[in-house]
Amino acid sequence: MWILRINMTDRTSKWEAVPERFRTLYGRALTSKIVAEEVPPLCHALGPNNKLVFSAGIVTSTPAPTSARISVGCKSPLTGGIKEANAGTSWGPDLASMRIRALIVEGLPQDTDKFWGTFIHWDKDAQKPVVEFFDASEYTGKDVYESYPMIYQRFEGRISIASIGNAGEYGYGNSGIVFNDQAKRPSRYAGRGGVGAVMASKRLKFIVLNEKGSPGVEIVDKALFDEGRKKMIDAIRTHPISKPKGGLNTYGTAVLVNILNEAGGLPTRNFSAGRFDGAPKTAGEAIFETNKERTGKEVYNHACSPGCIIQCSNTLFNPDKSERASCIEYESTWALGANLGVDDLDDIATMVHLCNAYGLDTIETGVTLGVAMEGGVIPFGDSKGAIQLIHEMGKGTPTGKMLGGGAEVAGKLLGVRRVPTVKGQAMPAYEPRAVKGIGITYATTTMGADHTAGYTICPEILGVSGKQDPLSPEGKAALSRAFQATTAFIDSSGHCLFIAFPILDIASGFEGFIQECNGVLGTNWSADDVVAYGAEVLKVERAFNEAAGIKAEADRLPEFMHLEPLPPHNQVFDVPDEALDSVFKEM
Amino acid sequence: MWILRINMTDRTSKWEAVPERFRTLYGRALTSKIVAEEVPPLCHALGPNNKLVFSAGIVTSTPAPTSARISVGCKSPLTGGIKEANAGTSWGPDLASMRIRALIVEGLPQDTDKFWGTFIHWDKDAQKPVVEFFDASEYTGKDVYESYPMIYQRFEGRISIASIGNAGEYGYGNSGIVFNDQAKRPSRYAGRGGVGAVMASKRLKFIVLNEKGSPGVEIVDKALFDEGRKKMIDAIRTHPISKPKGGLNTYGTAVLVNILNEAGGLPTRNFSAGRFDGAPKTAGEAIFETNKERTGKEVYNHACSPGCIIQCSNTLFNPDKSERASCIEYESTWALGANLGVDDLDDIATMVHLCNAYGLDTIETGVTLGVAMEGGVIPFGDSKGAIQLIHEMGKGTPTGKMLGGGAEVAGKLLGVRRVPTVKGQAMPAYEPRAVKGIGITYATTTMGADHTAGYTICPEILGVSGKQDPLSPEGKAALSRAFQATTAFIDSSGHCLFIAFPILDIASGFEGFIQECNGVLGTNWSADDVVAYGAEVLKVERAFNEAAGIKAEADRLPEFMHLEPLPPHNQVFDVPDEALDSVFKEM
Repeated sequence: MWILRINMTDRTSKWEAVPERFRTLYGRALTSKIVAEEVPPLCHALGPNNKLVFSAGIVTSTPAPTSARISVGCKSPLTGGIKEANAGTSWGPDLASMRIRALIVEGLPQDTDKFWGTFIHWDKDAQKPVVEFFDASEYTGKDVYESYPMIYQRFEGRISIASIGNAGEYGYGNSGIVFNDQAKRPSRYAGRGGVGAVMASKRLKFIVLNEKGSPGVEIVDKALFDEGRKKMIDAIRTHPISKPKGGLNTYGTAVLVNILNEAGGLPTRNFSAGRFDGAPKTAGEAIFETNKERTGKEVYNHACSPGCIIQCSNTLFNPDKSERASCIEYESTWALGANLGVDDLDDIATMVHLCNAYGLDTIETGVTLGVAMEGGVIPFGDSKGAIQLIHEMGKGTPTGKMLGGGAEVAGKLLGVRRVPTVKGQAMPAYEPRAVKGIGITYATTTMGADHTAGYTICPEILGVSGKQDPLSPEGKAALSRAFQATTAFIDSSGHCLFIAFPILDIASGFEGFIQECNGVLGTNWSADDVVAYGAEVLKVERAFNEAAGIKAEADRLPEFMHLEPLPPHNQVFDVPDEALDSVFKEM
Repeated sequence: MWILRINMTDRTSKWEAVPERFRTLYGRALTSKIVAEEVPPLCHALGPNNKLVFSAGIVTSTPAPTSARISVGCKSPLTGGIKEANAGTSWGPDLASMRIRALIVEGLPQDTDKFWGTFIHWDKDAQKPVVEFFDASEYTGKDVYESYPMIYQRFEGRISIASIGNAGEYGYGNSGIVFNDQAKRPSRYAGRGGVGAVMASKRLKFIVLNEKGSPGVEIVDKALFDEGRKKMIDAIRTHPISKPKGGLNTYGTAVLVNILNEAGGLPTRNFSAGRFDGAPKTAGEAIFETNKERTGKEVYNHACSPGCIIQCSNTLFNPDKSERASCIEYESTWALGANLGVDDLDDIATMVHLCNAYGLDTIETGVTLGVAMEGGVIPFGDSKGAIQLIHEMGKGTPTGKMLGGGAEVAGKLLGVRRVPTVKGQAMPAYEPRAVKGIGITYATTTMGADHTAGYTICPEILGVSGKQDPLSPEGKAALSRAFQATTAFIDSSGHCLFIAFPILDIASGFEGFIQECNGVLGTNWSADDVVAYGAEVLKVERAFNEAAGIKAEADRLPEFMHLEPLPPHNQVFDVPDEALDSVFKEM
């Protein structure tokens, strides 16, 4: 296994052995570790000293189910702190199969008037990967739905592609890195924190992989791995949320819309209410029913990446059965729906597709548009106006650039003070005043507001891993801490976070999860060990943030959430600062 | 003496006795103390919990020369930290004469669709001031050169006016509070840090004062005061920089252009060089010669405020002898000149006038335009394009709003990484790589990049208070610390910072300065006492910032100044972090 360094200053590559101290570090654990070791915390995120690190998870590219995640790490231009974003795509398994443990993109060229691509493929003779560079000028300025087919045409064989869209090229704080899904769509995003702008700052537009002939991932104890894998598969196929034709496979993540709306925790019209009358029209059930009506059959969801047996990715079809958008996640239909007072599913789908095409994070985009609506740019509910604003972002007009820096910056420019961000990153689709634990995660995670960092929604809303009152702050710091540490390990394992539903409820699933990892690595981890592993990842990230000047005072929700009671529960966010501070103090 | 509270939530006012702990606190010392005591450090700067505090200095409204400064304090929407900005105007003396030690504007109305004014005047019968409110809707959306004459017309007598321009109304981070000069021009700005947006957030557009009949400031020991005053006057009238027809009176502060250019420390084209070929055409000498040619006589400068004997404020006249702009400060002619690669004095004057009219800080505006030029919005040197962009800012177009948040935000939106800011505030007209001590002040002052906070230019460039090599980092932390502490006291005394030139070089001047203050207050301060007073002010400010999450990591210059050698000296900023940290550690 190698660490591959690509230096964009002179477009050279370098292979290094994996140091012993990285032996068990994969995915998020490794990207965060390398960023923490090599990136000066106070460097400019778009400058020569930032690095962009890719690493697949422990079990990625093995037959472990639902495990094709690729982790992307760097210093974030949006938060100023460390960033890890991950996506499900064949790109991760392909990197792992070529035994590239981490790909580190560093430096940047003096000549900033063009973009480059790199093509990494397996050389059978040399029995190692080869790195080539190509001029990407002809693809520059195109959206990724235009450029991806050109890249698929250019390179033969079963390639995987990482890229940036227009948003990245402009250097927006709101810009992701996109990966292909199973149907060659440029739709799987490491979306948050401006990782696209970091890749663009290095003038790198594409990383194309072809793993053909590569040896694949080594599994130290195959029998143990297989035992674990079977337990995982059983658990996933049993749990009501993750089983075939279960909640996610039928309705996608947007199954959450009605659930959160019912709970009064669906942020509506820029976080001014917790319930939206039009919500059901934007929910997973509505997507399913619309597709049924338009295609004449029940359409179940598909896998975003190889080996996924949860298969939660939906497509919304047009009346003529053509694709309108894929995938409409819960976060997206909320951000561009309830959050904007919009209940037109087709318009939401158009917005999702445009975000994907231009390289924008749907959460950051939706929250930014909500702030823009509050600032009077367009009225709430104006979905056509919102579509136009996304086009402006994608085209880089002045209005677009005003919004491209994300919600916090837009709030500053528009004089808006109801700005739902933490550490500069927009809040996802769960209202902290109605679901207190997730507010603790937003406030304290090293990532800026991020639900995936510690998804306390499981017990607070879904009844997974027990049941806790969402309105109560009691015990929620410990809950968030436990979820954050476990999540950091899941993000390092390469599994999709959605395995949490079955493994938290089904003991043998959790056991199998650890056995899989032990099987690949030859380790002897217990449940306590994996939580300790996750906690260590968080401590590394936290130390980076502190050195970047992001400390306890940044672990707070915006003031308006303490001042304005949220309907329908009419509660403020009442978790004491001491509880927030305890998350890391007692880690 | 009173503390006057104006609560904009319900437009009520309240008079309070001055607490004993504020006995010797005036000006910056008092505004910072009140902000530190009453404003939650993590509140939203434009929210209901921020407060806007005005206080005149110790000797303001006495016959002490050059002492008509008004201090404005709040939490800054630009830096997120504490902010003190001050201006020279009759408004300060008028407030002091009515014995209002501090005016605190707090709260904000629910109804945000209109602006209000307040009129504070002396009631002879009651022997105290009276507060009235008026609907300011008819003045909203007008620039201050339009609205000021309307206010002068509306209120009888010799009034003074504080106001905000369009920039404040939009809530820009780049928005000042403007005060009248001696010729009723709306041209004296507490310009930095977005104080205009804070006033606007409270929906307060004007604070009009009429002190007629008021008792004036009490002087405890008149003889001592007079002795001090005479020494100050002598020193000011003797020193080559401050004397009549001396440097400032003849060429204004723009006398510095050629001096800094010669020293290689004049930031040029967005801080990419330290010397600008066109600089002489933008200098104080050029202003003087242009006026001489256009008016047919030598025009010396005027006082911005009552009782100033330095009189450094210039006016640039048109060929038809009408006024083009007043005042063109060094900072302004640099920010909108060399910093943009512009050498057309008339265009610079137009830009200065537009900034004044719209309520923009000229430094923040110029640096933002420099970043915009680097980001490709318009080319360097395009003065007509720059004028157009300032109009866009003043009109609140999308392009204007994109730039209204200041240089740091513009850099984020435009993907520019050479962004000369500290703590979110744009750097003034001295290049830290060529003048190391001022870089330490920029990095460590509580205010964000600010030359006035600790003007080490005195010994580093001007030979005032000794002579030190500007390129050497040696001993500069101690130098900056001493200047910062002394300055914090000067800002509390009510004197203009320019008294520093004579009092630092002429011992009797410094003595007189302290005698004046002792005379007014009945104190018995020594030189050590006033430095300790200043240091205490800084500690109060620093504690606020730390509680707002702004700590040592924020006391750094941007990365590019460490990476890119600056012509002509080809030096980077090489002051070690430990030296920066020592400024406050050893305070």
